[in-house]
Amino acid sequence: MLVDCGEGAQLSLRRARLKFSRVSHIFISHLHGDHMLGLPGLLSTLSMHDLGGTVHVHIFEEGARLMREILSVICHGDNLNVEFDVIPAGGGVVYEDKSLTVTAFPLYHRVPCVGFVFREKEKQRHLRGDMVEFLKIPVSLLPDIKAGADFVKADGTVVPNERLTTAASHVGSYAYCSDTMFNPAVAEAVKGVDVLYHEATYAHDKTQNAATYGHSTAAQAAEIARLAGVKTLLIGHYSKRYEDTSILLNDAKEIFPNTIAVNEGDVISLV
Amino acid sequence: MLVDCGEGAQLSLRRARLKFSRVSHIFISHLHGDHMLGLPGLLSTLSMHDLGGTVHVHIFEEGARLMREILSVICHGDNLNVEFDVIPAGGGVVYEDKSLTVTAFPLYHRVPCVGFVFREKEKQRHLRGDMVEFLKIPVSLLPDIKAGADFVKADGTVVPNERLTTAASHVGSYAYCSDTMFNPAVAEAVKGVDVLYHEATYAHDKTQNAATYGHSTAAQAAEIARLAGVKTLLIGHYSKRYEDTSILLNDAKEIFPNTIAVNEGDVISLV
Repeated sequence: MLVDCGEGAQLSLRRARLKFSRVSHIFISHLHGDHMLGLPGLLSTLSMHDLGGTVHVHIFEEGARLMREILSVICHGDNLNVEFDVIPAGGGVVYEDKSLTVTAFPLYHRVPCVGFVFREKEKQRHLRGDMVEFLKIPVSLLPDIKAGADFVKADGTVVPNERLTTAASHVGSYAYCSDTMFNPAVAEAVKGVDVLYHEATYAHDKTQNAATYGHSTAAQAAEIARLAGVKTLLIGHYSKRYEDTSILLNDAKEIFPNTIAVNEGDVISLV
Repeated sequence: MLVDCGEGAQLSLRRARLKFSRVSHIFISHLHGDHMLGLPGLLSTLSMHDLGGTVHVHIFEEGARLMREILSVICHGDNLNVEFDVIPAGGGVVYEDKSLTVTAFPLYHRVPCVGFVFREKEKQRHLRGDMVEFLKIPVSLLPDIKAGADFVKADGTVVPNERLTTAASHVGSYAYCSDTMFNPAVAEAVKGVDVLYHEATYAHDKTQNAATYGHSTAAQAAEIARLAGVKTLLIGHYSKRYEDTSILLNDAKEIFPNTIAVNEGDVISLV
C-alpha cells in the first residue's frame, strides 16, 4: 500500500529495493503535484510488469478523471491493469479486508484533502494449547472459544474463557495527515493510533504562514498527537527554508516528546 | 532551452545547479511518459519562481491539451506564465530569433514523434579594425561591409571585402533524435550538424527488437551520423538490459569513430 505518490516515486521505490509487483493499493490524499505527479509514471511502469492483479488507486473523482486522460495519452495500447476507486468528498471507508480497514477523513488544506487511518481489525484471542489438550475440547468448539466463549464440561462445569485463552495480539494502527492546517477534528479522526504521521511545514516563527497556506507548524502537529493520545508522532514535509530541521523537531518535542523527524528513505516500524 | 522533460527533470536541473528562471523554451519530441512526465512538476515549480517572462512549451496538440488539463487541476489559482506552441504533425520551424532556428522533423517511432535541429544563423564577417582606421571608412558603411560589401575609395579604387574583414565565426548546430527506428530520412534532416544526439537503445544482437519497438541500435545511430556527415555523435537512451554500455559504444565506434556515450548529468560542449 502506497500513500501519496509525488514526482519520482518510482525511483524511490527502486532505490528502496521494493518490488513494483507488491504495490496493490495507492491512496492519494489530494491533487497537488507533490502528492500525485509520480502516479502516471509509476502506473505506466507497472503496466510493463506482470503484476498478476489489479492496482487500485484511491483518489478523488477529479484525479481519477485526470489520470485516465493522462494514461490514455501515454500508455495507449499498453496492458494497464488499474482501477480507480473514487474517494467520497467527505471521506469514509475506502478499503476493507478481513484484517484491515482504511478510512479517509477530512483534512483542512487549500484544496479538498483527506488523511488516511489504517486500523487492523480486532484479533481473536490465542488458544492455550495445554488447556485444550487437558480438557479434551472438541475441535468444532475452538472457533467459538477463540472468539471468547466459555467451555462447558460434560459434568456441566463452566470453564471461563480467560482460563482457555490468552489475550489477542496487539491491533496496530497508523494515520497519515499529508497537508493540513491545525484543526482538533484531525485529532478526533486519528484518536489513539500507534503511529501518526503529520506534516510539519513550519517552525513556531511561521504560525501565520501555516494558517495562510493551509499547513501546520511542528508544534501544531505535536498538539494533534497529544490531543489524539497517539504513541509515536512522525513529522515531515518541511518547508525548504529549514536547511536544518532540528528546530522543527525541538518545537514538536516540547509538546509531544516521542516525536521522530523523518526523511526520504527512512523505514519506520509500526509495532 | 530544454529538450524533452522526463519524470524528475526538475530534480536534474536542481542537481546540475541550473537556474529555473533560465528556462524559456521547452521542446517535447513525443508524448511518451519518459519524455514528458516531468513537465507538470517543472511547470508548477516554475510558477513559484519569478521568471520575468513566459515559458514556451513546444509540443504536439494532444500534449498541449493534456498539459492544460493537468495544470488546471494541480495549479489552479497559481500564477502560471506558460504558453503552448503546437508542433505541426509533419514538423517545421518551431522557433526562430535573430541568431537561431529550431526545426522539428519527423522521426519514426511507435507514436508521432519529431526530432529537433538547432542551427545558428549565418553570422556576419568580422571587420578588420586596422583597415577601417587606415582607410577611414565612414561608420555608416560598416554594416554593409560586415555583410560582405567592398569599399570604394574617393579615387574610385575598389578595396575588396576580403581585405576589410575576416571570416565569420563558426555557425553551430545541434540535432536531437529522441526515439526512432533507423531511417535515412533522419540523416537528411540532420545533415552536417556539429553534434548529433541519437538514441541507441540496443546493441547489434537486438536489431529485430529495434525494428519492433521503433528504436535504433547503436550501429544504426552511427550509420545516421555517417550518412549525415556530422562531426560528433552522442548516443544515449540505452535499454536497461545493458548494465555495461561499452558494447553500445563499441558498436557505434566501428561505424562512426567520433562517438560519445552520454549519461545523466553529462555536460557536452557544442563548439
